[in-house]
Amino acid sequence: MVHADASTFASNISKEEAYEQVLMQAEGLFDGQRNWVCNLSNAASLLWHAYKSLPEPSNQVNWAGFYTLDPLSPPPPNPPQLILGPFQGKVACQTIPFSRGVCGAAAATAATQLIPDVDAFPGHIACDGASRSEIVVPILTPDTKKVVAIIDVDCAVVNGFDETDRKYLEQLAELIGKSCDWP
Amino acid sequence: MVHADASTFASNISKEEAYEQVLMQAEGLFDGQRNWVCNLSNAASLLWHAYKSLPEPSNQVNWAGFYTLDPLSPPPPNPPQLILGPFQGKVACQTIPFSRGVCGAAAATAATQLIPDVDAFPGHIACDGASRSEIVVPILTPDTKKVVAIIDVDCAVVNGFDETDRKYLEQLAELIGKSCDWP
Repeated sequence: MVHADASTFASNISKEEAYEQVLMQAEGLFDGQRNWVCNLSNAASLLWHAYKSLPEPSNQVNWAGFYTLDPLSPPPPNPPQLILGPFQGKVACQTIPFSRGVCGAAAATAATQLIPDVDAFPGHIACDGASRSEIVVPILTPDTKKVVAIIDVDCAVVNGFDETDRKYLEQLAELIGKSCDWP
Repeated sequence: MVHADASTFASNISKEEAYEQVLMQAEGLFDGQRNWVCNLSNAASLLWHAYKSLPEPSNQVNWAGFYTLDPLSPPPPNPPQLILGPFQGKVACQTIPFSRGVCGAAAATAATQLIPDVDAFPGHIACDGASRSEIVVPILTPDTKKVVAIIDVDCAVVNGFDETDRKYLEQLAELIGKSCDWP
């Protein structure tokens, strides 16, 4: 099987169809493989190539990947922190406290953050000054409902994401949460 | 600090200069951060953007990333196996036995494999049929000299890599080997 074909997306499909392909391919790739690094690495690739196949604004996505709960988080009363996981795009911030930025807010509240304009978000962390909008979706363990990771996608234009992105990324987060063994 | 700038490469630099920038940026990013997933994720991004800034054949690189020693390798007498780590490019094979393909050969022998034409390599694993040449460099622990990971770079044309790639990727492998805490 030539795995690379999994991230080949037709150029004339809708965003819904692209996300459906991401979910279907991810489910296939995760079948029999629960290593979280392996699965997040392939999931980042699927997302990246899906966005690049779509019209604007989705093809303006400039970062797609994951942060996970840092096993070396500082002890309480400090907030825990996220650490960079597999991604596609330019070099990114390595650690993010739960108390800071869009990623931190998603991790701390266990709720999706759909940010049309990151410059209007208090405490936004600019890993890449080119990013103008962002969606961050928490990944929870299915049993204990603990935040173990987040999906983070940045876009170089404002209003890069909508309720369709939220719907499908939340489905992907649920699939990833139950498909991996978390440290 | 805007980290994304670390993976911005000027368009008129030589391959040597691009690799020097990769090494310098990697050393800076690894300073104070020994998480292997975080560091390999950023290193894959640095490599990818370096290649894309160069003339042919380097800009035809279609996959740059890492495999690591799979903690769930089958027990002896089976050979150990590699598992997919952070990368940039299309979806890739998840596990590779030490006994198979270019990556397996590099891991089994702890020696760089510089393959001008993958179709001429016995047992080559075609994760992506578009890949025509490949270089794989083992990453060893500095003390026990155990192979813990490999750098894998694929190119869509034959003869994509030369002794310059070998020299600098081996330097990067040494830096990564000593800069991360391995599981």
